[in-house]
Amino acid sequence: MPMPTRSIFLTQYVCGEPLTEEHFEIRECPLPRLQQDEVLLETLALSVDPYMRGCMTGLSTFYVKQFDLASPVYSMGVARVIESRLPGFSPGDLVLGAIDWSERSVLSAAQIADRPVGGFALRQVDGTRPVTQYLGVLGTTGITAYFGIVGTARPQRGETMVMSGAAGGVGTLAGQMAKLLGARVIGLAGSAHKREVLVDQLKFDAALDYRSSSLTDELQALAPTGPDIYFDNVGGRVSQTVMWLMRKPARVIDCGQISTYDDPDGGWKIDIRPIHNNALRLESFTPAHFAEFYPAARAQLTHWVDNGKLVGLESKYLGFESTPKAMVGMLSGANVGKAVVAVVD
Amino acid sequence: MPMPTRSIFLTQYVCGEPLTEEHFEIRECPLPRLQQDEVLLETLALSVDPYMRGCMTGLSTFYVKQFDLASPVYSMGVARVIESRLPGFSPGDLVLGAIDWSERSVLSAAQIADRPVGGFALRQVDGTRPVTQYLGVLGTTGITAYFGIVGTARPQRGETMVMSGAAGGVGTLAGQMAKLLGARVIGLAGSAHKREVLVDQLKFDAALDYRSSSLTDELQALAPTGPDIYFDNVGGRVSQTVMWLMRKPARVIDCGQISTYDDPDGGWKIDIRPIHNNALRLESFTPAHFAEFYPAARAQLTHWVDNGKLVGLESKYLGFESTPKAMVGMLSGANVGKAVVAVVD
Repeated sequence: MPMPTRSIFLTQYVCGEPLTEEHFEIRECPLPRLQQDEVLLETLALSVDPYMRGCMTGLSTFYVKQFDLASPVYSMGVARVIESRLPGFSPGDLVLGAIDWSERSVLSAAQIADRPVGGFALRQVDGTRPVTQYLGVLGTTGITAYFGIVGTARPQRGETMVMSGAAGGVGTLAGQMAKLLGARVIGLAGSAHKREVLVDQLKFDAALDYRSSSLTDELQALAPTGPDIYFDNVGGRVSQTVMWLMRKPARVIDCGQISTYDDPDGGWKIDIRPIHNNALRLESFTPAHFAEFYPAARAQLTHWVDNGKLVGLESKYLGFESTPKAMVGMLSGANVGKAVVAVVD
Repeated sequence: MPMPTRSIFLTQYVCGEPLTEEHFEIRECPLPRLQQDEVLLETLALSVDPYMRGCMTGLSTFYVKQFDLASPVYSMGVARVIESRLPGFSPGDLVLGAIDWSERSVLSAAQIADRPVGGFALRQVDGTRPVTQYLGVLGTTGITAYFGIVGTARPQRGETMVMSGAAGGVGTLAGQMAKLLGARVIGLAGSAHKREVLVDQLKFDAALDYRSSSLTDELQALAPTGPDIYFDNVGGRVSQTVMWLMRKPARVIDCGQISTYDDPDGGWKIDIRPIHNNALRLESFTPAHFAEFYPAARAQLTHWVDNGKLVGLESKYLGFESTPKAMVGMLSGANVGKAVVAVVD
């Protein structure tokens, strides 16, 4: 017996201008009858992540899959299995994977295999912790921060790391991890509240306003010989400012370039003159390049969280309808920590 | 007794359009009377180098000094001392350093110290070899290739290196050095003649036309698992093509971005999406970052040249008046090897 559900669609590709809530639409759709090798899911929580902006531009130049305007948007999410004709999944199971932006959805084995979100297909998770943790500190965000810091930046004890987007989902975690490895961490963030959280709650060594006209002086005062590492989530002008100040040689870790994603060409352009003149090394990564270390990374993250070494801050949006707002807020820097949607509280 | 000389001036800053010979002017100027701590020089040979384009844009955003439109252009050059009131220099000495684009010039100790070309002040060279070698294979070009390959790219035996601008001054030398270190070298060059020189004379493993519509296929055929190193002298679209094909992870060495220097913002912008998605490492350098190794580099280069291991190809322009043509030709890829001007043959 088909039942209706609500789903969120992207109504058009958006390139060269900011994404807004008006670019999404909630539609009521009938759920298809469950077939062999399919599961019926009830969505509990959804993630909104920066890479998703690149799936909404309509540009095929980047190696990310564009969302199909005729299907619901999807992202990492946690769902409960309501009914299953897919071997290995039973009603009541909690599952993590690429979940439709739908209150309920039917996923086939083929769809599951076809959605390369987070580097794995749908998998079971246990119900002993808040489900949003699987989207944040124990999910792709934590994994990204982990491979960015432990696998790529590799801070040495006493090195100074400057990080843009420090109050974001990856930033809050990456900064704490760099501290765990012994680095001094200077976070860049756009509001006094964010900077307070970074220093007071997360114990960053300092937090600066990236919009400050005296940013250069402030950075030089904190790192007189120049930062050893710049961990970049943001790109654009702030990156130029930091890169001109760095030690020679030093390293820049490109984790994301979120400030550029609304550019007409989809962003990701950088001016490499400071890299050239300061003999910097720019290293980039995606979690997929460390896929063989996922289990180890998850074990380490779980250990840190359970021992109070790593705090997974969340900005939680409540209710299914808030998903577009969460996405837009995440892109515009409205949140502290990982933006997640609690579809069912 | 003041005597006249001819000098070449840049008549205007040129940004966002190609530099042409019309942007230069030869003027007859009186030579000032020699003062204490000055030398009178007769120019024998002048170098034209890609970095000089950045000194002609009028943009202060790059950390290179803009040429003063009221003074002659200057570049690396070789001159003979005609008269000297500067301790340490005697008539007849051959000197290498930042030399005015003038047939004769007076240089003061202060001017010599103020011109950071090639990382050293005026110094004597011996007269046992063609003077243009000090501008090419034994000069800044050779030094740049050496620090780019030996100090930065560090190819391992058996690795595959793709190089843009392979037939240029740095490219011809960097490719030979990578071969000396055991790498396979695939050069990119724009004419059949250039590619023939690279393969037949310089023993590159292959040379491809960067304009070819099948460049991707050709590179994949030659390097099925992707290049390990991309040594980039050119930037722009060809770099994007190569970087999407590279091993994951692999390294990109930014030596220059000559194809972008006529851009309205002075160039040096790159699209880092292939760097992000392929987890590449972009490393950059200038010879100044290796200043303490200059003597060692010169000794190694001399050894290679004298033992026939390294061929310093030159495109020689004859006569003082040909200097602007040499500069423009160098920027537009008209030459094979190092472009030099033999002012006095």
